Amino acid sequence: MKFKQLGLVGCGLMGASFALALQDKHLVDKVVGFSPSQATRDKALQRGVIHQAARSAAEAVQGADLVLIAVPVSHTAACLADIAPHLSADCLVMDVGSTKTDVVAAARAAMGDKLACFLPAHPIAGKAQAGVEHADASLYQDRALILTPLAHNTPAQIATATALWQAIGSRVHSMTPEAHDQTFAAVSHVPHLLAFAQVNGLLQQPQAADFLKLAGPGFRDFSRIAAGDPAIWRDIFLANAQQVLTQTTHFRIALEQLEAAITQGDAAQLQALIAQASQARSAWQLGEAASRTDQNQRLPSAGESQED
Amino acid sequence: MKFKQLGLVGCGLMGASFALALQDKHLVDKVVGFSPSQATRDKALQRGVIHQAARSAAEAVQGADLVLIAVPVSHTAACLADIAPHLSADCLVMDVGSTKTDVVAAARAAMGDKLACFLPAHPIAGKAQAGVEHADASLYQDRALILTPLAHNTPAQIATATALWQAIGSRVHSMTPEAHDQTFAAVSHVPHLLAFAQVNGLLQQPQAADFLKLAGPGFRDFSRIAAGDPAIWRDIFLANAQQVLTQTTHFRIALEQLEAAITQGDAAQLQALIAQASQARSAWQLGEAASRTDQNQRLPSAGESQED
Repeated sequence: MKFKQLGLVGCGLMGASFALALQDKHLVDKVVGFSPSQATRDKALQRGVIHQAARSAAEAVQGADLVLIAVPVSHTAACLADIAPHLSADCLVMDVGSTKTDVVAAARAAMGDKLACFLPAHPIAGKAQAGVEHADASLYQDRALILTPLAHNTPAQIATATALWQAIGSRVHSMTPEAHDQTFAAVSHVPHLLAFAQVNGLLQQPQAADFLKLAGPGFRDFSRIAAGDPAIWRDIFLANAQQVLTQTTHFRIALEQLEAAITQGDAAQLQALIAQASQARSAWQLGEAASRTDQNQRLPSAGESQED
Repeated sequence: MKFKQLGLVGCGLMGASFALALQDKHLVDKVVGFSPSQATRDKALQRGVIHQAARSAAEAVQGADLVLIAVPVSHTAACLADIAPHLSADCLVMDVGSTKTDVVAAARAAMGDKLACFLPAHPIAGKAQAGVEHADASLYQDRALILTPLAHNTPAQIATATALWQAIGSRVHSMTPEAHDQTFAAVSHVPHLLAFAQVNGLLQQPQAADFLKLAGPGFRDFSRIAAGDPAIWRDIFLANAQQVLTQTTHFRIALEQLEAAITQGDAAQLQALIAQASQARSAWQLGEAASRTDQNQRLPSAGESQED
């Protein structure tokens, strides 16, 4: 497997790291990249992320047999519409968006007969610091990569995409766009929402500053994700609104059960509810540790990802 | 400042570490300790935590000029009633409980004229692994220690207690029992409750195992405290029920504001709410880092404390 030309739309952390990883593994001959910022394009050229800077997304994808759309989720629809007329019919186009149902709807609306090129993807990777200057050829190493194939995707397309991400070190999972959005609402989007809400709940109170002076390592870890980028999380919550709200309903039921046991002074029920969570969380940790050992995974550091 | 005899009631991690710290700083001549378990008493003797094992809490405090009650919160009331008749009138008695209003009520009910000896305390310290075998003379080094003095406490008592905890490295704060319980409901108890509820909210769903397979570092940090000890957290939530439920009310208001912005598709309001949390959390982190540099604080490791 080798690609002649990668058309890279978006030369930020995610896109630039993908281009570096492909070059590192000798999977691509040439990278043509576009970013709206001249400074980003210049840095991408200087760092060898791209071999040629394009003046538009449309120009970047011309002649490409592989395209990666690595733009903010809110720009994806416009980007797909821009590039569709310029795509070769046999080009493989993937994105890196954190939500998939909305991207699929945008692709269906915007891509016309080039929809057949598009295979939605979501790498579960990132870094606390964004931008081409933090790009890293190993960003996708030992991280999960979700493909959400559509009815039009051929087995050959799916096999090529799988081999490509595996070649740069990712563990490839496949699921429907709906299952993807449900899963990440449950394990990522709602934890972020709860962390934002917990911090805002403190800030509502006049004693907030005094409270925070005594916050310790429990608060530190619980609220680490509350420092996430506001524009990224605004877009994710809006794009995945339905699944996020479904998951907060499950959360509320569980919170109300705990609160009822507290209110009623029902020690046995309260302990049982806590034990259920505690055992599941401890088992998860053990499973993670085992999977790291099995797969020689890189242990992600705290604060690594903006949107894990 | 030097004590002749520490009466240690409870030779687990917290109590044993206190005894080791005092000996390390040459602040006590003799330690007499009691734990209900023979094995714990033997280990405490072997490790030099105590010089003499007592057959009861009452025996441990006889002749002591300093007493530390380091038992599970749910045993504190019975313990105070047991020891009160055996205390010297000039003895200083402290506890290490995570909640204070309930301990004060128990002391008032149980201690009679020996109530004057009692100065409630809460060291914000711990380790993931409990037990005398993990006792550590540096457990209280660079950690916060809260005193919640009562009307009967003399300035001399408070000064002695402050000097004692400072001598073993703690940063001593003083507040009312009510302010203590409110503060820790806000920054510790409710984050734990939310983490338990989030995990239980996942477990309610038939896809829970699939969800958890794709959980990443965001979930890992957010839910780290959901692995807490069920018996410890049952007792804390029941002892501090009112403040915990007050804090979940603040949390709910903040969550509903975020959900309303999502439901209404109000991107500007949603971003503003997230930015408020994100800025406050980032500022807190910077303040913590600065305070660590200023005070040469030990950076607590993840999972260090069962009840931070």
